[in-house]
Amino acid sequence: MKLLEDGVPLADLSIERVARTAGVGKATIYRRWSGKEELFVDVMRAAEPPDPQLPGTSMRDDLVVMLETLRRRGLASRSSAIMHNVYVQAKCSPRIWAAYEANVIAPRRALTLDVLRRGQRDGELRTDIDVELANDMFVGAMLVRTVLRPDAGLPEGLAEEIVDTLLAGLRPVRPPAQ
Amino acid sequence: MKLLEDGVPLADLSIERVARTAGVGKATIYRRWSGKEELFVDVMRAAEPPDPQLPGTSMRDDLVVMLETLRRRGLASRSSAIMHNVYVQAKCSPRIWAAYEANVIAPRRALTLDVLRRGQRDGELRTDIDVELANDMFVGAMLVRTVLRPDAGLPEGLAEEIVDTLLAGLRPVRPPAQ
Repeated sequence: MKLLEDGVPLADLSIERVARTAGVGKATIYRRWSGKEELFVDVMRAAEPPDPQLPGTSMRDDLVVMLETLRRRGLASRSSAIMHNVYVQAKCSPRIWAAYEANVIAPRRALTLDVLRRGQRDGELRTDIDVELANDMFVGAMLVRTVLRPDAGLPEGLAEEIVDTLLAGLRPVRPPAQ
Repeated sequence: MKLLEDGVPLADLSIERVARTAGVGKATIYRRWSGKEELFVDVMRAAEPPDPQLPGTSMRDDLVVMLETLRRRGLASRSSAIMHNVYVQAKCSPRIWAAYEANVIAPRRALTLDVLRRGQRDGELRTDIDVELANDMFVGAMLVRTVLRPDAGLPEGLAEEIVDTLLAGLRPVRPPAQ
């Protein structure tokens, strides 16, 4: 974390340098991590807010909590030089990104897909929509702001607004229920 | 384009090398581009599909065309080593990304915001939603697939499905019109 705080680029990070900075031997590092990619992914996970506890009261409430986590994550990565640095470097290293995708993003995505499937089962979500596409709709609006448009606003209540608006629809006058 | 096709990293690209490869003098390059960032952004623009002609028949139809352009762009960047290489390198260079954002993304975004404002004026879009947020909802679902999940499907008809689903809402039984 210190090396990243100091803005050391990933390319210049080595297990040896990490060990030296931590004042331990390389063997100590290798007992826990097989390489710098694995170590880096754990650092990224540590820098992120923990995965949320879902209330489980409804699909709507669970989705709000999932999106609120993304919103806070976005705010954190804007305020934390480390998280920002880490994220940019991960995006630029295909191997790191693949590990981050598999270890951090994929589990969170699986959790959201479960929430959506439960919503379809309980009549909260249209059953004629692929849950993967529904996931992209709920998560996409928030990710556009946190990941693609770092200048976009992330106000309080954004998660609720996105979820409730997508459930209700963007058309002013609703057609009768199908 | 040849240097990028050969996978030359941006850091190794220089106006001198571009001029040498093109068989012209550096002055010839500098007459058109003030630096390699500006040149690179023009290359990115050239590698992209042209901005779409909007039918103007309805907000819905215009949004479908905008999202279809993003879908085709996504398919192109998956099939084109150049576009992929260019995009990744741009993401990893803050200066290039800022130029790409200003020259390619911002105008396309402004176009979509105009379409949404016209939709609010014509009663096709709820007026109680910020058009910026509406834009993130329509565009976000497609961008998640093209930009953040290169493995996600981009089937024919995805643009229509996203636009029509977001307009109608994800809730199975619609509440009466407000």
